[in-house]
Amino acid sequence: MAKPIEFYFDFSSPYGFLAAQRIDEIGAENGREVLWRPFLLGVVFKTTGGQPLLDIPLKGDYARRDLARSARLMDIPFAMPKPFPFMAVSASRATYWLSETDAEAGKALAKALYRGAFAEGRSIADPQGVANVAAELGHDRDEVIAAVQNPRIKDLLKREVDAAQRKGVFGSPYIIIDGEPFWGYDRLEDVGVWLESGGW
Amino acid sequence: MAKPIEFYFDFSSPYGFLAAQRIDEIGAENGREVLWRPFLLGVVFKTTGGQPLLDIPLKGDYARRDLARSARLMDIPFAMPKPFPFMAVSASRATYWLSETDAEAGKALAKALYRGAFAEGRSIADPQGVANVAAELGHDRDEVIAAVQNPRIKDLLKREVDAAQRKGVFGSPYIIIDGEPFWGYDRLEDVGVWLESGGW
Repeated sequence: MAKPIEFYFDFSSPYGFLAAQRIDEIGAENGREVLWRPFLLGVVFKTTGGQPLLDIPLKGDYARRDLARSARLMDIPFAMPKPFPFMAVSASRATYWLSETDAEAGKALAKALYRGAFAEGRSIADPQGVANVAAELGHDRDEVIAAVQNPRIKDLLKREVDAAQRKGVFGSPYIIIDGEPFWGYDRLEDVGVWLESGGW
Repeated sequence: MAKPIEFYFDFSSPYGFLAAQRIDEIGAENGREVLWRPFLLGVVFKTTGGQPLLDIPLKGDYARRDLARSARLMDIPFAMPKPFPFMAVSASRATYWLSETDAEAGKALAKALYRGAFAEGRSIADPQGVANVAAELGHDRDEVIAAVQNPRIKDLLKREVDAAQRKGVFGSPYIIIDGEPFWGYDRLEDVGVWLESGGW
């Protein structure tokens, strides 16, 4: 059995959202499972000295245009969240918490949260917003809120972010196939070719 | 007649080099002329606070890997110049100087210079290195060296760099089609689709 594809993303990353709309399909076409791994870009930036793309002069304006254009090309609903950026901590914790007992449920929640933030104008920045989305998938609101504030789950996310850093993950989305890294939404095409060809 | 495609690049930009290998073909397939416009990313970075990609922790290492991998996928010879980055001033001036009287000759020189730097391990960092490449295309060595040091040509490049900045060019490669900007080698696919479809 081929190793799963590792899909690293920050819930507050718009290019991560775009990649999230296609990565499972690319995996399925190539008989690969996809592990969804939320992480916190802000923590990584403290090490790498990076800064949020949309805050950078000129590049930020370009990125807003490019994001809207890319979403139109993919024919998916897209709207930048307001306020932006937002805290991705609660959404990330909820995803890992749910994934502990049910990986598919965790992924389904991650998808719903991402869609809520970047397509439906909902806030997923705090435990309540995350719980609202989770409740629509049949999860218990109070349980979600408790999980997000649970020290053990906080620690779980911390360890995942550390692990991502150790793997060299410095941006979102960041996709690893059998150790080969691909950074950015614009490498999805290459990811597909890499999987089909076995690398080049 | 459709407006030409504006192709902005820095001679010291490896992703610019990759884009340079395909941009004319994309233009030709869509009945568009391509204007090659060298500029100086370092000057732009002074305004935008950008820094050379390959110097950034983690991103730099990733980019080296991604560049080699992308070149293999395109099946083109590629080797990072040493030293790197190098001064692109002489190559840029020579290109504009030649383009003044013969646009096609200017483009042919730009291609040969880029290939020299990123595929043939040659230095194009100083007037002599540029003149060596130009001489092989039948140009007079001394004339090229004089042109690169000519205050009028220096000023010509300066004005081109200013014009690029006014257009919002902040990276290399940067492609403009009828006012629509596309940044990065990884947008070439979109550039082709944009030209074929008339935009979306």
